[in-house]
Amino acid sequence: MTELSVVNLAEKFGAFTGHWSPKVVGELNGQDVRLAKISGEFVWHAHEDADELFMVIRGTLRMGLHGGDKLVQEGELLIVPRGVEHKPIAETREVWMLLFEPSGTLNTGTAGGERTVAVLEKL
Amino acid sequence: MTELSVVNLAEKFGAFTGHWSPKVVGELNGQDVRLAKISGEFVWHAHEDADELFMVIRGTLRMGLHGGDKLVQEGELLIVPRGVEHKPIAETREVWMLLFEPSGTLNTGTAGGERTVAVLEKL
Repeated sequence: MTELSVVNLAEKFGAFTGHWSPKVVGELNGQDVRLAKISGEFVWHAHEDADELFMVIRGTLRMGLHGGDKLVQEGELLIVPRGVEHKPIAETREVWMLLFEPSGTLNTGTAGGERTVAVLEKL
Repeated sequence: MTELSVVNLAEKFGAFTGHWSPKVVGELNGQDVRLAKISGEFVWHAHEDADELFMVIRGTLRMGLHGGDKLVQEGELLIVPRGVEHKPIAETREVWMLLFEPSGTLNTGTAGGERTVAVLEKL
């Protein structure tokens, strides 16, 4: 049970190794708290009905945006509004990040494709 | 504009000093990202329609709960489901925390009283 259990982020990050496969560590108000490790580049995509928050816990995230990339460092967060096409890129070798977005949001949004993770593991 | 601006948490925390007065630093999917500094004890209260996430950025939070208090350390988070009465307490002299909860959620929930902050400042 996630509710009323204290979630230690370092412990959760220590429990998985794969890249681009977010894990759900909490749920509230129809939203997921997800943790992800990324390396290299993802695909351009957008979410029609979901704003998405990226908080960097370790490393540096480059968020590709058509209006100009944004660098997100440790201790920083960026909200990408629904409909805005974006491409997450690990600026450092590996990036650990916390995501906050509606439950059911697909990692690849409306772009789909082979990097879609349809069912997210809960940690 | 919060959207598409990178939010640096240390910088935002450096921009205010008052206790028990959450600041809004982001909004997504009808939810607020709030930052708060606390010291001492708050009041017992619950939120009828809002689950509430507390992530500790500095210090140690003691969450008073009728089923037994929970200590939340730096790098940890706790989700308090709607309807669950709780009482935030700063276990250390001061605690900095990030909150996720529906926009419009009152800090004192249904308890009300003099510690209610009806309109939250945006940073």
